[in-house]
Amino acid sequence: MRRVAIVGAGYTKFGECWDKSLRRLAQEAGMRALADAQVEGKDIEALFVGNMTAGRFIGQEHLSALAADRMGLTPIPSTRIEAACASGALAFRKALMAIQSGQHDIVVAGGVEKMTDVGGDSAVASLMGAADQEWESQIGLTFTGLYALITRAHMQQYGTTSEQLALVSVNNHKNGVHNPNAQYPFEITVEQVLKSPLIADPLRLLDCSPITDGAATVVLASEEAAKRFENPIWVIGSGQASDTIALHDRKSFTELQATIVSSRVAYKQAGIRPEQVDLVEVHDCFSINEIIAIEDLGFCKKGEGGKFVEAGKIARDGERPINTMGGLKSIGHPVGATGIRQLADLVTQLRGKAGKLQVNDAKIGLALNIGGSGATGVTHILANQNAL
Amino acid sequence: MRRVAIVGAGYTKFGECWDKSLRRLAQEAGMRALADAQVEGKDIEALFVGNMTAGRFIGQEHLSALAADRMGLTPIPSTRIEAACASGALAFRKALMAIQSGQHDIVVAGGVEKMTDVGGDSAVASLMGAADQEWESQIGLTFTGLYALITRAHMQQYGTTSEQLALVSVNNHKNGVHNPNAQYPFEITVEQVLKSPLIADPLRLLDCSPITDGAATVVLASEEAAKRFENPIWVIGSGQASDTIALHDRKSFTELQATIVSSRVAYKQAGIRPEQVDLVEVHDCFSINEIIAIEDLGFCKKGEGGKFVEAGKIARDGERPINTMGGLKSIGHPVGATGIRQLADLVTQLRGKAGKLQVNDAKIGLALNIGGSGATGVTHILANQNAL
Repeated sequence: MRRVAIVGAGYTKFGECWDKSLRRLAQEAGMRALADAQVEGKDIEALFVGNMTAGRFIGQEHLSALAADRMGLTPIPSTRIEAACASGALAFRKALMAIQSGQHDIVVAGGVEKMTDVGGDSAVASLMGAADQEWESQIGLTFTGLYALITRAHMQQYGTTSEQLALVSVNNHKNGVHNPNAQYPFEITVEQVLKSPLIADPLRLLDCSPITDGAATVVLASEEAAKRFENPIWVIGSGQASDTIALHDRKSFTELQATIVSSRVAYKQAGIRPEQVDLVEVHDCFSINEIIAIEDLGFCKKGEGGKFVEAGKIARDGERPINTMGGLKSIGHPVGATGIRQLADLVTQLRGKAGKLQVNDAKIGLALNIGGSGATGVTHILANQNAL
Repeated sequence: MRRVAIVGAGYTKFGECWDKSLRRLAQEAGMRALADAQVEGKDIEALFVGNMTAGRFIGQEHLSALAADRMGLTPIPSTRIEAACASGALAFRKALMAIQSGQHDIVVAGGVEKMTDVGGDSAVASLMGAADQEWESQIGLTFTGLYALITRAHMQQYGTTSEQLALVSVNNHKNGVHNPNAQYPFEITVEQVLKSPLIADPLRLLDCSPITDGAATVVLASEEAAKRFENPIWVIGSGQASDTIALHDRKSFTELQATIVSSRVAYKQAGIRPEQVDLVEVHDCFSINEIIAIEDLGFCKKGEGGKFVEAGKIARDGERPINTMGGLKSIGHPVGATGIRQLADLVTQLRGKAGKLQVNDAKIGLALNIGGSGATGVTHILANQNAL
């Protein structure tokens, strides 16, 4: 298979961007990534766009064509991918395959979501499109509700505590302070988390990632094309897996098969073990999801994720730095954009350009993007020249 | 690049399927294609699902996971593709690339749309998600309105007549009579078309494809894997292109750049000229679109599509048989499924299994799937063993 590198990355300020439409956000992220790669529009051969539910939020499907149009890139092929909150990473994976297939050499993958100040359905209702409409949405479940069920099961089975959950949010906010694009760039304390309003017991407001507008873009290049770019970051592993869309159909609530399977595929492709990963981007849509990811990705034994967090191992200078730029919790979670934002943050770290947030000697990074309550899992492993 | 074949195909009865949910339709089409290929679920390595707007119709996104789940295929990778009415062919193209990339050998591509008896927005409103939301949908345009503008321009520029448009619908219905899965399997006359109610002048009811529930699936295999299947139909060309999403941004209303560019790419890859195509599936969402496709695909000079139809050249025994199984007009147009249904019909013809609808000595077939008012165009060229 052809080797592929990321040669440019960028994302917009995440937040409640009431002055910017979806198309404007997508365009802005695209321009940032192209400028970062120092590549011109005429060099781009294909476009992949991750978006979950602009149809419901703003009445706009067909974002593939819209993106190519707004970037002035017609008539190049443009494709929209949707896999709920894993839309971004999956768009990236398809861009990767387009290069691996031999059809293209330089390809752009972006993700975008406009979730505030929209004309369509509410965010909570629209997001439930990621769950099982017949068996979950219609009976009134929300996504916080689904993850609350998962949290409760993890607490009962493994003794995970609310304090351990709180420490996830505290860690991610601590990093987000120095991320200029973060929606909530401030520190929080365990006490603040534990005193924040209950959303769905035992999950509290500060266990939940926010509703966010934003867009992120990366530029991918084949090995041959990558030669002309500075400091390419190589994609050394890519895995994707699915699980039952409804939570109640799974054997276990406390592990995500889509994470386990997709990460094993990615590790195998990369030829590395979990211990070799220098930093990690996980999908902390709710704090429990970071704890479960730590376990499912193989960084500790099953059930010990809470203790792993409590021991400070996820800190930037810890054993396994996680969400070093702020994660979904502090940066924000524009659902279609998150998977690409994670990769963009890994690129910054692996280039050694993360400033105050830099992880020492970062050579290999892993990103895990999750769709729904775990029905889609996408894992990517990136490496810089020093790792090869 | 690895060669890829279609080794199984099937689709559900198209129509107002009030007794079948989206998931049931998808499952049924999947079972038909797997049975046709004589392949078991355990052999399938990845799934691609084309769907335009189930989020708006029934509140269900994340169809990738839902499809893998309902087919009992978890944890294999499953991906939803959306490109408005070209979602089906684009899902197929990504399945093709997944095999070409070397990551998979046997892959399933399906398309589905549930458009009647739904809980969400109306079909007319939801479909406008395929157009430019800010500049077209919000001012009240409908898709019939958009294609009416295109029709009027073609009439003024080239003298295309309402009778010529009517003959497109007459041809397609004549074929659809013998298609057991067609929504409207009856013949119509030119007089009936010309007397049917005006929807958006000059387009009348019988110039328009219907609102339809349905699903279609095909099974793809790499050259090596295809050896164990009977009568594989080879994918010899694949092209995809984009255009401005808004009609008013184009230089011309009377040609679709996305058709021209995508078909030229596909012809080049296949190493054939338009004259070598034995039968054609085009996207007759509105009758004008078949006439423009005939021109843009290179079967006649620009502006002569109406006369081409009038001369009977699109008939099953004509110079260039088009929509030989009924087209969108008679079979129906479940938007996400249409692109796969077109390929399934070509497979039936190229296998020589089309019964009363069989085109004599069919060796090479072309399918053109269009998204929106032409912002996405996807062309595929298939060939049987006799053509190679």
